[in-house]
Amino acid sequence: MSFSCGCCRTLGQMLFEYDTPRIVSIKSRKVGLINRLVQLGILAYVIGWVFVWQKGYQQFDSVISSVTTKVKGVAVTNTTDQGVKIWDVADYIIPPQEETSFFVMTNLIMTLNQQQGRCPEMPEDSPHCISDSNCTAGEQSSRSNGIQTGKCVPVKNRTAVHTCEVLAWCPLENDADLSHHPALLKDAEQFTVLIKNNIRYPKFNFTKRNILPHINGSYLKQCVFNRATDPDCPIFRLGDIVREAGEDFQEIAVEGGVMGIQIKWDCDLDQSVSKCVPQYTFRRLDNKDVQNTVAPGYNFRFAKYYKGPGEVESRTLIKAYGIRFDVMVFGKAGKFDIIPTMINIGSGLALLGVATVLCDVIVLHILKKKNFYREKKYKYVEDYDLVGNSPACETP
Amino acid sequence: MSFSCGCCRTLGQMLFEYDTPRIVSIKSRKVGLINRLVQLGILAYVIGWVFVWQKGYQQFDSVISSVTTKVKGVAVTNTTDQGVKIWDVADYIIPPQEETSFFVMTNLIMTLNQQQGRCPEMPEDSPHCISDSNCTAGEQSSRSNGIQTGKCVPVKNRTAVHTCEVLAWCPLENDADLSHHPALLKDAEQFTVLIKNNIRYPKFNFTKRNILPHINGSYLKQCVFNRATDPDCPIFRLGDIVREAGEDFQEIAVEGGVMGIQIKWDCDLDQSVSKCVPQYTFRRLDNKDVQNTVAPGYNFRFAKYYKGPGEVESRTLIKAYGIRFDVMVFGKAGKFDIIPTMINIGSGLALLGVATVLCDVIVLHILKKKNFYREKKYKYVEDYDLVGNSPACETP
Amino acid sequence: MSFSCGCCRTLGQMLFEYDTPRIVSIKSRKVGLINRLVQLGILAYVIGWVFVWQKGYQQFDSVISSVTTKVKGVAVTNTTDQGVKIWDVADYIIPPQEETSFFVMTNLIMTLNQQQGRCPEMPEDSPHCISDSNCTAGEQSSRSNGIQTGKCVPVKNRTAVHTCEVLAWCPLENDADLSHHPALLKDAEQFTVLIKNNIRYPKFNFTKRNILPHINGSYLKQCVFNRATDPDCPIFRLGDIVREAGEDFQEIAVEGGVMGIQIKWDCDLDQSVSKCVPQYTFRRLDNKDVQNTVAPGYNFRFAKYYKGPGEVESRTLIKAYGIRFDVMVFGKAGKFDIIPTMINIGSGLALLGVATVLCDVIVLHILKKKNFYREKKYKYVEDYDLVGNSPACETP
Repeated sequence: MSFSCGCCRTLGQMLFEYDTPRIVSIKSRKVGLINRLVQLGILAYVIGWVFVWQKGYQQFDSVISSVTTKVKGVAVTNTTDQGVKIWDVADYIIPPQEETSFFVMTNLIMTLNQQQGRCPEMPEDSPHCISDSNCTAGEQSSRSNGIQTGKCVPVKNRTAVHTCEVLAWCPLENDADLSHHPALLKDAEQFTVLIKNNIRYPKFNFTKRNILPHINGSYLKQCVFNRATDPDCPIFRLGDIVREAGEDFQEIAVEGGVMGIQIKWDCDLDQSVSKCVPQYTFRRLDNKDVQNTVAPGYNFRFAKYYKGPGEVESRTLIKAYGIRFDVMVFGKAGKFDIIPTMINIGSGLALLGVATVLCDVIVLHILKKKNFYREKKYKYVEDYDLVGNSPACETP
Repeated sequence: MSFSCGCCRTLGQMLFEYDTPRIVSIKSRKVGLINRLVQLGILAYVIGWVFVWQKGYQQFDSVISSVTTKVKGVAVTNTTDQGVKIWDVADYIIPPQEETSFFVMTNLIMTLNQQQGRCPEMPEDSPHCISDSNCTAGEQSSRSNGIQTGKCVPVKNRTAVHTCEVLAWCPLENDADLSHHPALLKDAEQFTVLIKNNIRYPKFNFTKRNILPHINGSYLKQCVFNRATDPDCPIFRLGDIVREAGEDFQEIAVEGGVMGIQIKWDCDLDQSVSKCVPQYTFRRLDNKDVQNTVAPGYNFRFAKYYKGPGEVESRTLIKAYGIRFDVMVFGKAGKFDIIPTMINIGSGLALLGVATVLCDVIVLHILKKKNFYREKKYKYVEDYDLVGNSPACETP
Repeated sequence: MSFSCGCCRTLGQMLFEYDTPRIVSIKSRKVGLINRLVQLGILAYVIGWVFVWQKGYQQFDSVISSVTTKVKGVAVTNTTDQGVKIWDVADYIIPPQEETSFFVMTNLIMTLNQQQGRCPEMPEDSPHCISDSNCTAGEQSSRSNGIQTGKCVPVKNRTAVHTCEVLAWCPLENDADLSHHPALLKDAEQFTVLIKNNIRYPKFNFTKRNILPHINGSYLKQCVFNRATDPDCPIFRLGDIVREAGEDFQEIAVEGGVMGIQIKWDCDLDQSVSKCVPQYTFRRLDNKDVQNTVAPGYNFRFAKYYKGPGEVESRTLIKAYGIRFDVMVFGKAGKFDIIPTMINIGSGLALLGVATVLCDVIVLHILKKKNFYREKKYKYVEDYDLVGNSPACETP
């Protein structure tokens, strides 16, 4: 019989039977309330956090962006050796174009008319010598400016001091004392940069740019970004960028640094597109080195090459201190999608099951009526070969 | 007794007892079918979507890539002031190398023999003046090309017009009217670029490059990418890139722009490695500005510096219009992994529980036999201090 | 009655009733053990994998980084045509600064004094000609160095060979045989690079840099990275980088290549900040092309422009072979957060339900006592219109 039942069941069950757990429904204000509260909490979490806050009903995509920058401004310097000199974009932007960043030279040490030749090492950053025996021909350290010839020669204008002679671009650069204070191109604070940023969310085939539709040419010609008055103007004064980052431009200008221009595009594409606008924030990316002044600032060397009469190559070496501005574009866009919605609803329902688990713990182990409830909830079964010597707690 | 039971149970339960919910199995074609259908739906979702479509059995990794590019081609220009001139890679690629992008100059405004000096502002992009009183010495706007000297002088060749004199690189660049139409280096359409792209999936320690194994040197010397005939050739004609992006090369060439070369590496590492090949797509990254022509195109300025007799520095200023090509490498690879498989199976089973929840709603609240079913499913219990005045629906 | 019960229940249930499934508790060593083992496994997975290994109690953030690099070193070359020459940073770093990478020239082909003019094509990489009829004026291939004039002229120093004359920068570069073996600037192996890397985890507002607090100026002046002795020194010898990547510097130096400097910042912000330190690893990013030598190495062309007497522009064309070092910064930081903790606990509990499902399968379908257990677990109900002809297995 149990067999015939077995087969008919296994067959029938497949289609025409429906299994649902048997429930004991306990009438108890206390437990009932506890249960509802826990369920309410879970519901609140699922709806409030997962759906409203985390937008669990949306599919997300992260931004793809392209950036172009254009700096404008002119600086004037007046130095003893060079006289009055004008610096424009072609002079102070190095290299002339980069993918997502631009470098503005704010200070420099210029060494004119360098030629391949022999000259004594700088006495400041290399050991002095008494005789040639102190210098070994061909030796080079990664810190020196050239290859030693093996001679020990007097330093120009300081015949008392002798250093090893080196093959190098002579005269050597003298950057012992940091150049110019305040920075030579201090006018850079007034420079402006136009940042053109086009973004795209491929999943939603959505594109936008930071020059918003309502911006017309005449406005763009004269506007400057100002969080209060001109928050949509894509033209930034370098001084403002640094100030908003809480730094002092003239201070950075001397030794150089790295600034971050962050553009955030967080868009809810279920809402109107006009609400999807860029947010600009500025930060200094390198440390200010208040506590330890190890390798501060940002600088690099480059040269302009000339050919004098007789094909002799000479160069002007420039140690450029300045500010590198990295444009960083972040952002993610969300749009309603059925799949994540289903998934979150599903897992939300599953979580509701946890409520019962918690209440059972309370009802069966904490409440003083626990044994009463247990006997209602549980039915104790022994393997039938043991039936008979079942413990007292078997329900009669 | 209830105590002794309490302890013996808690002890025994720990190991030698097995709790499983009691089930009421309802023989009903209708409900049974509903139940199976819901379960079938969930199963279909779990298997079809999570496993087959989303590859829920795989662990994923995103691509790390390195790109090098090499442009080839020669352009010839024939202008009144310069005569016939040849432009090769070293002339039109600025800067000579970048990490993931390259710029090809297609059009330019050249200003020869600029020297530091004094000259009148361009009448086109600055206010005219009648007397020196209109010009204030030392004044500079971020739009002007120099620092005003305070004088008001006649514009060269147009003595009628006066503008403020400025300290600047003279003569000033005249970009009032956009240079050359069609673009000077229109031949750039025929240039080709070899893109070498090496990718890596660190989690799987898998590396590959876009020069596929079957490509030999002789083929690489003469092939050009063609989606139909040569889909694996890593050499692209610039004109083809722009055309595939739905743009007109000669049009972009005039004012410049930014193109995206997207390389997609989606690899299923459970399948043969030979199926893991790059897919190339091309897009224009900056807006074409059909509706608003605000700051269109892409251009920047750079200079070549010379030293004439007497150490006088002069420069050739070049306003370069051109196309920047950004190479963007996307992609993710998947490979079977036991952990995500387990997780997805687990959550899939958990989801099946939802079927019962749904059916219970139907059975207990919608079907007209709901009360009958309820009494079978539920057992009602009052707190025993209330026993006696239990409602009629208590099962006897 | 069933109605009155229906309403009172639906109302009461809302608050003062608590539903919990009825459980059949089977006393059976075998099944009990199986059950516990499965649960133990799931618990082990949830605690061990999700929490301990995957840090399921943490919220994560990925790194934002800025990198600056500074190369130091001098190389000396001694060639027949140029004599002894010194190369310093300004000579071999091209372009002088990049955002996250730097290029060190290690080998080069120099073509001096190129001027716009007419000269025969290189016989090595272009077809020879017998008469002008073989050359079509104005023709240009993307592989040739110029535009054909239509003439067929003898090649310099090899009058036997004739090639088509081209308008180009003459004399043409001769890169038929790869330049110099060993590399010209083989000293580059001794160059050092200081890498300054500042990272930030915006979610936790945590910033750090790879020049660790305990590093002082004097140490930084003389240290060189060494995994064993100086693992915190941010100054790397180029030779060491290449060697650690398992490559031979002098070999790469000849044809060039791309190296990756990977900096990994995996930080557990629940632990002491001092444990959050960068890990440096090095890899070659481009293929070594052992099997197929298609387009090996890395090189590009650039030029230095000069103006001779009479304003004639000439240039020195340099085909630069070298190593591009890409600095890649990875990493994620984790910190305790209540939300992910809750979620993982919830899903962990839900998974425990799977244990019961598995055991039911065993108990009800595999064990030989399955029918006995079934009758305890199940209660069979027919639609009441069928009641009467219910099967024997209905529990009385």
